[in-house]
Amino acid sequence: MSIKDSNSVILMAQEAKVASLKLSLLPTSAKNAALRAMAGALRRNQSYLIKENAKDLAAAAKKNYAKALIDRLSLNEKRIKEMAQCLLDTEELKDPVGQILSVFKRPNGLVIKKIRVPFGVIGIIYESRPNVTSDCVGLCLKSGNAVILKGGREASYSNQAIVFVLTKALRRTQVPSAAVQFISSARRSALDILLRQEQYVDLIVPRGGEGLIRFVAEHSRIPVVKHYKGVCHTYVSDMADIEMARNICWNAKVQRPGVCNAMETMLVHRHIAHRFLPVMAADLRKAGVEIRGCPRTRNIIGASVKKATERDWTEEYLDLILSVKVVDSLQEAIDHINMYGSHHSDAIVTKDHKEGEHFLKSVDSACLYLNASTRFTDGYQFGFGAEVGISTDKLHARGPMALEELTTYKYLVYGAGQIRE
Amino acid sequence: MSIKDSNSVILMAQEAKVASLKLSLLPTSAKNAALRAMAGALRRNQSYLIKENAKDLAAAAKKNYAKALIDRLSLNEKRIKEMAQCLLDTEELKDPVGQILSVFKRPNGLVIKKIRVPFGVIGIIYESRPNVTSDCVGLCLKSGNAVILKGGREASYSNQAIVFVLTKALRRTQVPSAAVQFISSARRSALDILLRQEQYVDLIVPRGGEGLIRFVAEHSRIPVVKHYKGVCHTYVSDMADIEMARNICWNAKVQRPGVCNAMETMLVHRHIAHRFLPVMAADLRKAGVEIRGCPRTRNIIGASVKKATERDWTEEYLDLILSVKVVDSLQEAIDHINMYGSHHSDAIVTKDHKEGEHFLKSVDSACLYLNASTRFTDGYQFGFGAEVGISTDKLHARGPMALEELTTYKYLVYGAGQIRE
Repeated sequence: MSIKDSNSVILMAQEAKVASLKLSLLPTSAKNAALRAMAGALRRNQSYLIKENAKDLAAAAKKNYAKALIDRLSLNEKRIKEMAQCLLDTEELKDPVGQILSVFKRPNGLVIKKIRVPFGVIGIIYESRPNVTSDCVGLCLKSGNAVILKGGREASYSNQAIVFVLTKALRRTQVPSAAVQFISSARRSALDILLRQEQYVDLIVPRGGEGLIRFVAEHSRIPVVKHYKGVCHTYVSDMADIEMARNICWNAKVQRPGVCNAMETMLVHRHIAHRFLPVMAADLRKAGVEIRGCPRTRNIIGASVKKATERDWTEEYLDLILSVKVVDSLQEAIDHINMYGSHHSDAIVTKDHKEGEHFLKSVDSACLYLNASTRFTDGYQFGFGAEVGISTDKLHARGPMALEELTTYKYLVYGAGQIRE
Repeated sequence: MSIKDSNSVILMAQEAKVASLKLSLLPTSAKNAALRAMAGALRRNQSYLIKENAKDLAAAAKKNYAKALIDRLSLNEKRIKEMAQCLLDTEELKDPVGQILSVFKRPNGLVIKKIRVPFGVIGIIYESRPNVTSDCVGLCLKSGNAVILKGGREASYSNQAIVFVLTKALRRTQVPSAAVQFISSARRSALDILLRQEQYVDLIVPRGGEGLIRFVAEHSRIPVVKHYKGVCHTYVSDMADIEMARNICWNAKVQRPGVCNAMETMLVHRHIAHRFLPVMAADLRKAGVEIRGCPRTRNIIGASVKKATERDWTEEYLDLILSVKVVDSLQEAIDHINMYGSHHSDAIVTKDHKEGEHFLKSVDSACLYLNASTRFTDGYQFGFGAEVGISTDKLHARGPMALEELTTYKYLVYGAGQIRE
């Protein structure tokens, strides 16, 4: 990367910082007006956005990208409408900034208020889907943060066009347009420089493949909130309703296998395995799912089933593949998940509420489900509007990250001349 | 470091992890019983602790350590009583584990509970004062976390004796004694290995000099919550009560200059400088404080005052030295603090409440004071009982860190068979 390019990333970070201090003081009404202005601009510039997107699609076609990726990359009238709607939905969400988290008085008369404040500048590193660009801009601005975006090379024309439209719209609002910055260079070296701007950037959220996320986590001097992968489990207890378990497991595995909250391993109590596994396996096979089973699983549903190796228990297939293990007890299921899981989303299916509570309490994951599909781990599904990502970290944010998770807090201490004895 | 030593650190981390899973399920009463048992054991083993401490003191005397350091290192009857009392005070504090942070119902009937849970295993790296050992054990256990302690070489006999007494006491309680681990090796290589146990250790809190903290932050694969330094400011507005400002500034600089929440830079509005600076400078000189002033400061209180250089604005003196700057406006004070400060603790002295609020809102620091001394940034002073440290990070914890800050959260989702459409 040239010195010029490097300087431009540093300059962006500085400009974002200055803008963030201004933005942090704006009232909700000013931020909402900006969200409306951006939503309107997206709709009005639909044909420009589709034209720019076509350039990315042409490049993708030349490179023989997978059909699923090309689909994720495509913008059309409907998707642009959805992007605009997401900004309007964000307008409706409660502004977390200034919220009083607690207030207490000390014996010496000091009054201490703990209030929510924006982080400052948030860097978002992401891949493929261009709608992420406007969704993240909306969440960051509403929570009072400036944002630096670095999208994937494959969507560079689309992302640049979206940012151009959004920042132009901001010029007619109180939100400084420098609060939205976009790094157009696709090079890793540009990312490297961004990750060293700890003086100006307060938080990095990487979204994408495990390789990208590991690169970011290892190279960043700025705190990173992330998840590497989602190795999600469903445990079918001997106290499960078999029909419910079939439904939930099918949904968790088949409905959208390529996402982080899809099930990768199914654990089944040995007392229910003979009744449950044959019907479940038939369901899964019909959907084209390859099963990799432990010895007891293979005993029950046939030795033609592939053997699960130790490696399968930690694998995130992101595909129509499922590892299956028969366990002796609730405790064995809990221990398996805590040992092999990725602490993302795990479920138990049981009619015994006490057993369910013990599972929820004992498994060390961000989101735990009693009698529901792990597929619900999602900002929109949780009612947070949208999300900038999902965290399996324990520091700061766990699970879907939306407006509240884009804030930190500070203590305001009101005195009347108190000094320390 | 030998392979044997390295294995022993890894083994400790594994044992702590196993113990933490057990500890996380214990009721408050069991944790409180353990705190009482440990407090009793410290009192009963007073003479043993003083005997072991004498070995550290003898070594320190041989090495001609500073008197202040030797004082910090010393254990006597009074200090051991205070250590025991801190454990009993921690017993009185509210257990944060299991607290419901929010609960909401989704249109599809899912009920989502956000509850406080322990981190798991917390590593605490610290220097000199042996009471930190038992204070941190108390806070970690009460918040349901196992703890791995690594104290400074200078207190190794004392720390080892305290841990021996505490873990022996735990053997008669429900808290597994493996929940308290102690790394006796003073080598940095032992620390290095601990910092790579991200599989078993969830959080690292370094306490000590900036060098130690930078080493930990740069080498850790585990998330670190910390502060590097405290460059704290007091801004004396043109609307300040001069007597109050004298009191507060004197307290913030002189009462205990060697700590992170002491004032390092005083900012004074130009309209009050002629009335305030001469009396304040006289107070400070009486206390032996060296003043380093900007040109306008030197114009007012005499050219014999040392010149402040650019470097002084970022310096944490931890000593009877103060940099002083005359500013033109509230905004200049805010900009100076945001640019040169360490985002720890900053104060304004003013009779104008509106101006005060603007300062509190605009300065990006963990703790902001209106008409009070920055010296109050402290877990005990905030009413948190004790603290494991003070954070200037924005991720997870900001300001004094005690029980609540030693927890994270997870989402429990209660369904009746819901699947994602």
